[in-house]
Amino acid sequence: MAVEYFEAHNFFLQKGGSLPVARLAYRTSGTLSPTGDNAVLIPSWFSGNDEASETYLTGTGRALDPEKYFLIFTNLLGGGRSSSPSNSPAPSEQGRFPTVTYYDNVRLQHALLTQRLGVEHLRLVTGWSMGACQAYQWAAQYPGMVRSAVPIAGSARTASYNKIFLLALRRALTLDPVYADGFYASPPIRGLKAFAAIYAGWGTSEPFFRLGHYERFGAKNHAEFLEYFWEPFYLGHDANNLLTQLKTWELGDISDSPAYDGDYTKALAAITAKLITVPIDKDRYFPPEDAEFAASHIPNGRCATVESTWGHMAPMDPNLKETFDALFHEALS
Amino acid sequence: MAVEYFEAHNFFLQKGGSLPVARLAYRTSGTLSPTGDNAVLIPSWFSGNDEASETYLTGTGRALDPEKYFLIFTNLLGGGRSSSPSNSPAPSEQGRFPTVTYYDNVRLQHALLTQRLGVEHLRLVTGWSMGACQAYQWAAQYPGMVRSAVPIAGSARTASYNKIFLLALRRALTLDPVYADGFYASPPIRGLKAFAAIYAGWGTSEPFFRLGHYERFGAKNHAEFLEYFWEPFYLGHDANNLLTQLKTWELGDISDSPAYDGDYTKALAAITAKLITVPIDKDRYFPPEDAEFAASHIPNGRCATVESTWGHMAPMDPNLKETFDALFHEALS
Repeated sequence: MAVEYFEAHNFFLQKGGSLPVARLAYRTSGTLSPTGDNAVLIPSWFSGNDEASETYLTGTGRALDPEKYFLIFTNLLGGGRSSSPSNSPAPSEQGRFPTVTYYDNVRLQHALLTQRLGVEHLRLVTGWSMGACQAYQWAAQYPGMVRSAVPIAGSARTASYNKIFLLALRRALTLDPVYADGFYASPPIRGLKAFAAIYAGWGTSEPFFRLGHYERFGAKNHAEFLEYFWEPFYLGHDANNLLTQLKTWELGDISDSPAYDGDYTKALAAITAKLITVPIDKDRYFPPEDAEFAASHIPNGRCATVESTWGHMAPMDPNLKETFDALFHEALS
Repeated sequence: MAVEYFEAHNFFLQKGGSLPVARLAYRTSGTLSPTGDNAVLIPSWFSGNDEASETYLTGTGRALDPEKYFLIFTNLLGGGRSSSPSNSPAPSEQGRFPTVTYYDNVRLQHALLTQRLGVEHLRLVTGWSMGACQAYQWAAQYPGMVRSAVPIAGSARTASYNKIFLLALRRALTLDPVYADGFYASPPIRGLKAFAAIYAGWGTSEPFFRLGHYERFGAKNHAEFLEYFWEPFYLGHDANNLLTQLKTWELGDISDSPAYDGDYTKALAAITAKLITVPIDKDRYFPPEDAEFAASHIPNGRCATVESTWGHMAPMDPNLKETFDALFHEALS
């Protein structure tokens, strides 16, 4: 099915301001069952979109099979398809786009599900990276609505170390004079290339480079991996969109809501879903320790660490499809 | 003893060009024994100097005791005390300073030792980070002259993954429009702050942040750690000097010389010194695996991995002084 749009008007935001029109781009695959018990929500990751989520996490014959489940793929605010700096009219255009949080994203997705799609219960919410963060957010923000959750390589609260990474990305990108405080006439190419270089060092793992796994991307060395993969990828994105998503990521914290008032363990304890959190052992910014902590405070939580030299990028490793599918099956059962 | 200077004229460089005058800033502590068997060379690390080496690695009552050994502390070319972009006259000033390698640095240090200090044999060469890289370089470049070597958290050849980190630092710093291709009128503050943010994410380790070790630096969180420690540190350095040292680091390879012609295992096999390489288990860019590989190809080599949540910064951890001293004692015995 093609991308569709859900719109909320005068959408007030958690950290202040509002979007006159908040557009949520989404796509569905499969059909909602008569009893409404087969809806699976898959929010997008940083710089990803609904198509990427579908490609890597679902498919006919896989655990998340559109023949069996009603799959809903959403796009982050700031992701380029939903309302974003790159596509919003004044007064929310470019450098004036406001700060949005996971709370805002999930509230908008909730409106889509309940007001348009007729979905009252989620059999599963899953996602990778920022998609995983949204899965945690769903489980804490609408606990009565989420039966199971599988956050892959994400966190319920963004860690200090992770924030240093995000800060480095932000500083490098906004340093490009072409960026012009977000009102650039052409893309800040050099800033995006510096962004790509920083990302390349965090996105996979040390052994990924030592063992030469970049060869699977047609690269002979680190420089070609950067040139052939990371640079074109980030040059294809709008700088303000990336920065909007980074800010959402940085502010990630399921306890930052009136219900929990900053009490992180209280928020984790409020999650009633069967939650299997899936960190990657060599993930450079979402370490297993944080996921273990979260799982240990979630009543029906379990941590299933996956080993991979692909580090944070593990869901892109074709050899791990069965591993992830087994975890989805477990959560869906 | 105060800093002294050794000068070599018309100093030709490995990668081309020359320095009309190559100045090597150094300091000594202790006295050379009549038989000349107690000289210990300690080259400086990235953005470090002779004083920092002395403070962290030596001292009365420690293994490297100036009462017993003739300690020689050298400064890297580009380090700000030896010939550097910041202190060289035309035609080598600022952005015109040439590329220098470990080979060049060690050749100049060799001239200092043999032509001025009367040192024909090194009881030990040690150092941390780029100091460790120079220790490897010494052992391969002048094998007959080095009795033992203890490279701490460094490598004999800069790894692909390490180069990605260096590239990110270079791109961020040179992106600052103030940098002006190396001919800046005032320091590129924003570039240096972006540099500091990238470094903060690599210099220690994930658990250093998760466990809140930044509190030992008076910081309550990652942002204060950056503000109180990393930013002032790098704002105190000259941008061109940092970039010169980065280039030396990037080109690190003991086999890049006429003697080995790029054959890395041949260069390692040629090391006759008793070499104890000391990687840190959580070092983000000099992993134990690279050190183990090197040690396994050095006839008299051994790898002694040290565990520390301080990661690459382990030698700054006061709790590890005895650990390092024990390794120095072993090498000196």
